[in-house]
Amino acid sequence: MTICDARCDALFTNVHLATMENGYGELRDGAIAVTDGRIAWLGPRAEAPPASTVHDGGGCWLTPGLVDCHTHIVHAGNRSDEFEARLNGATYEDIAKAGGGIMSTVRATRAASEDELLRQSLARVASLLAEGVTTLEIKSGYGLSLEDEAKMLRAARRVGQVLPVSVATTFLGAHALPPEFAGRADDYVDEICQCMLPQLAALGLADAVDAFCERIGFSSAQTERIFEAARRAGLPVKLHAEQLSDQGGAALVARFDGLSADHLEHLSLAGIDAMAAAGTVAVLLPGAYYFLRDTVPPPVAALRAAGVPMAVATDCNPGTSPMTSILLAMNMACTLWRVTPQEALAGATIHAARALGRAADIGSLAVGKRADFALWDIARPADLSYAIGFNPCRAVVNAGVLRKPVVSLPD
Amino acid sequence: MTICDARCDALFTNVHLATMENGYGELRDGAIAVTDGRIAWLGPRAEAPPASTVHDGGGCWLTPGLVDCHTHIVHAGNRSDEFEARLNGATYEDIAKAGGGIMSTVRATRAASEDELLRQSLARVASLLAEGVTTLEIKSGYGLSLEDEAKMLRAARRVGQVLPVSVATTFLGAHALPPEFAGRADDYVDEICQCMLPQLAALGLADAVDAFCERIGFSSAQTERIFEAARRAGLPVKLHAEQLSDQGGAALVARFDGLSADHLEHLSLAGIDAMAAAGTVAVLLPGAYYFLRDTVPPPVAALRAAGVPMAVATDCNPGTSPMTSILLAMNMACTLWRVTPQEALAGATIHAARALGRAADIGSLAVGKRADFALWDIARPADLSYAIGFNPCRAVVNAGVLRKPVVSLPD
Ligand SMILES: [Zn+2]
Ligand SMILES: [Zn+2]
Repeated sequence: MTICDARCDALFTNVHLATMENGYGELRDGAIAVTDGRIAWLGPRAEAPPASTVHDGGGCWLTPGLVDCHTHIVHAGNRSDEFEARLNGATYEDIAKAGGGIMSTVRATRAASEDELLRQSLARVASLLAEGVTTLEIKSGYGLSLEDEAKMLRAARRVGQVLPVSVATTFLGAHALPPEFAGRADDYVDEICQCMLPQLAALGLADAVDAFCERIGFSSAQTERIFEAARRAGLPVKLHAEQLSDQGGAALVARFDGLSADHLEHLSLAGIDAMAAAGTVAVLLPGAYYFLRDTVPPPVAALRAAGVPMAVATDCNPGTSPMTSILLAMNMACTLWRVTPQEALAGATIHAARALGRAADIGSLAVGKRADFALWDIARPADLSYAIGFNPCRAVVNAGVLRKPVVSLPD
Repeated sequence: MTICDARCDALFTNVHLATMENGYGELRDGAIAVTDGRIAWLGPRAEAPPASTVHDGGGCWLTPGLVDCHTHIVHAGNRSDEFEARLNGATYEDIAKAGGGIMSTVRATRAASEDELLRQSLARVASLLAEGVTTLEIKSGYGLSLEDEAKMLRAARRVGQVLPVSVATTFLGAHALPPEFAGRADDYVDEICQCMLPQLAALGLADAVDAFCERIGFSSAQTERIFEAARRAGLPVKLHAEQLSDQGGAALVARFDGLSADHLEHLSLAGIDAMAAAGTVAVLLPGAYYFLRDTVPPPVAALRAAGVPMAVATDCNPGTSPMTSILLAMNMACTLWRVTPQEALAGATIHAARALGRAADIGSLAVGKRADFALWDIARPADLSYAIGFNPCRAVVNAGVLRKPVVSLPD
């Protein structure tokens, strides 16, 4: 099993490995070796190869670094004022009249410089990194113009340069209709397809394309046009689908060999079948369900029965899921939706990697994969989903490099 | 307003103060001065008195140190195995047959040495302290014998010696019926009243007395006997009341001038009236409601209308609320039960202090009170309740002493 032909760079020993191969898999009293930032060997501790540096894991559990595969974490401002106003009796209509809702985040994000946008976002990202996140998806979607979407995506790329995390960017121009296009949604979709998407793709700013397919978002016909533009640009697609109603979005994204369909509270059996056939990942986002006090859960048992891989993500965003804890998303998936702890951990590792099209590179412990690990002071992997608001992460390894303490922000 | 007759020991300036006097109250661009560990002055920044040490708060918000007024945080082991088993289809009956439930925590706690009990508890306490908690209530109730309850309470006292936090201990012998007394609940209540409670009180190990008054716990007649024993020992009382059914517990604890009635999902209007008349605090525990997927919220609007002070706490315990985040308890109170952010902050400061009988000493920013503060990098106090799984605490002050970084565990 070794690919260390000589001495490995580093060995992490005295650890229990949750390999997450084939969805789960564990190896107690194990060790894992790294060469050139990749996993070179893993196996029983007693059989470990020689290494230049040996790290004693102190009996911790070692998992793949966590992957948060659905976030809107780059944005300016927050919406705690609306949260407070609603709790003091304001209606959604009151808040909309006062300029609130998603457009307040669009205004704040457009007004912020790229540096300021980055600065505000880093504190939120640091919260995830402290919990062992080593790969993070970040969507645009609060700029809604070529210039402002590019600014968001550049800020997202810079997150991965400033902090020890791999960033996957997603262009979500079809998140909401910008005020400049009021009453002209199809014109805005033209703008996305003919201008924004191809230019952002050419700049290398987007790794994937997403849309919000919903009665209050974009229609499935509009979404399909965007997916065709993505295909022309050579970018994979994913979709905010069936969150509030069944729009056939899951089947649509599956037809485009989509990476993932996300939310899915109102997913139909036909949608499940299409996803299973296409290998499209179901990304579960319990934070929004919790924050919006939704009552219709996604069809977890049917997804499980159909063999659709389920990921779990924070959906970190200021309006419907102001959550910066992947461990809490895992707990909510278990508590609210009866996902099992093993499924939740797979949902934040191997299946989340697949939702980003990166399962060959990250998300499990296997020889040749990137050496991104999290080390946990826990008795068993289920502790990660069981505890609420507790962070047992003791160290993180990014491409073989140990970080402990886990993260500190640049000044 | 000053009681600095000369130079104060320390001044915290360039802060916005959330004073929490009269339930809320804020002072922007303020400063607060400390002498001998007590608040000596607070007011506009420009009028601050001279001080030996000046700390620039950098525009942070400064609140009273948070108070978690209901926890079972001292215990051994956890119950993630049961959590996982249930999610894999085990029934409560299966788990009980396998020796699970509260008795598994009793066994683990009885088996642990006092040092081991302390060690396991400190990591959980540290999670709360990192969020600005400066006062913490800790209940016994997993020992269920004089010796093991004393061990728990000694471990709780030591938490306050080892970490920078004030600990209030509560004797909860009437938490569950120990196996030695199976079928003889009244005999166990005799043991509590005649032996355990008076001896623990004489040892100074308990600051208050609590019971679990419920169909599956102790009857109101048994609870009343325990309250009479507490009165004889000179200890104030509080009660786990009306969580699963209305047992008239709130009215009972109010009749004994109780500090608090806690949980209260099934509280009646008569109970509310009795609490209002007695000044008994309603301690809201949304973590257990969330974790148990309960659907009956406590009557928050009626409590508000009756003027009953509402506290918010974690209820940290391994069986029904494995939660170590007071900020998350505040978010859950707002999100799930429509508590306002100002009420949630009062619930974790001044009203929580009152639930411990310590409102004259802590819980708000007022001259003469203990200088326990938390400093937050937030735009407005509502941010504390709005964010999910984010900790904006930048520093904590315990009796005038600044801690930054907030906490580190002893080796
Ligand atoms: Zn989203
Ligand atoms: Zn309790």
